[in-house]
Amino acid sequence: MGELTARGAPPKQDRSRATRQRLLESAVTCLAERGWSGSTVTVVAEHAGVSRGAAQHHFPTREDLFTAAVEYVAEERSAALRDLPAPGSTHAAVEQIVALYTGPLFRAALQLWVAASYEPQLGPRVGALESRIGRETHRMAVGLLGADEREPGVRETVQGLLDMARGLGLANLLSDDSARRSRVVAQWARVLDDVLGR
Amino acid sequence: MGELTARGAPPKQDRSRATRQRLLESAVTCLAERGWSGSTVTVVAEHAGVSRGAAQHHFPTREDLFTAAVEYVAEERSAALRDLPAPGSTHAAVEQIVALYTGPLFRAALQLWVAASYEPQLGPRVGALESRIGRETHRMAVGLLGADEREPGVRETVQGLLDMARGLGLANLLSDDSARRSRVVAQWARVLDDVLGR
Repeated sequence: MGELTARGAPPKQDRSRATRQRLLESAVTCLAERGWSGSTVTVVAEHAGVSRGAAQHHFPTREDLFTAAVEYVAEERSAALRDLPAPGSTHAAVEQIVALYTGPLFRAALQLWVAASYEPQLGPRVGALESRIGRETHRMAVGLLGADEREPGVRETVQGLLDMARGLGLANLLSDDSARRSRVVAQWARVLDDVLGR
Repeated sequence: MGELTARGAPPKQDRSRATRQRLLESAVTCLAERGWSGSTVTVVAEHAGVSRGAAQHHFPTREDLFTAAVEYVAEERSAALRDLPAPGSTHAAVEQIVALYTGPLFRAALQLWVAASYEPQLGPRVGALESRIGRETHRMAVGLLGADEREPGVRETVQGLLDMARGLGLANLLSDDSARRSRVVAQWARVLDDVLGR
């Protein structure tokens, strides 16, 4: 996307930014498809078509690369969601929230969270990242539902809904769970309409 | 637990059963603490104080050992739950259901599900195991809640509650989430009382 220089090539800074972005996107794809143990800097560099040296210039350690990748893709997703029109019903809002947990970003984040439970060098960084993404997702869900958290119980209702969405994502990991998921979403959207007094 | 023989040692069949049981319990502990990539037959045999040869006599492959382990511990847990007194309220029932997803068995099963998403030799076996455990857990949850699934929406309500419980288990993976969890449980138990018409 950078401006072209007089000789037709993008300036160095833009090339560097594009390389970084390709590495981050490849890192999420590799994590989602191969898990933590199969995702090394070398594997990601190859997937992105970048030399290992260039990858290490951008991300000195494996932990740097993968935590930055999950954070980057989560931010891209938040930005994309902000541009969508407001959902017209609780059911549409719940569908949008649940959809956040069925794509490659959730799969990649899940692999990272699970690896962080036994890899000491990942634990604290992923814990902090999970908190940041969790707060941002909660804020998005409140907005999509048009919920008023000053009402008693509403905060915990939204939290429980996000826990349910995370559990639905997990249930979709090994096989396509979309038929069951849409029945659960329809029922709980009706329940939420009651809880939120609609 | 076997009867002693005339010379004071348990019969061979009982020793073999005890060895098998120690291997299964060690396999769950190792999976929960070290993940799939850190859990080999050798690591489990050492943890159980059993020779590698004896471990391989019981479980020819790594996949045999770990799928049998998760299934065994899930069955032990179901049997233990059947012996508990019926919970006195929806809140107590939801607490018992959510507690199923916060201990070592959930952690071990989670490591196995996540590994199955990228290890082709695990995929189909873990998928089938997940279905069996899922059906049994659903049956238990209906019993604990005293829910009547002939009523419209009740089946999906219980399914969504189990998805929420799974998501709460995931949220507890990297840090102690018990304070937030008990607020979510209290709120959703109130919601369930309404949905189930109590």
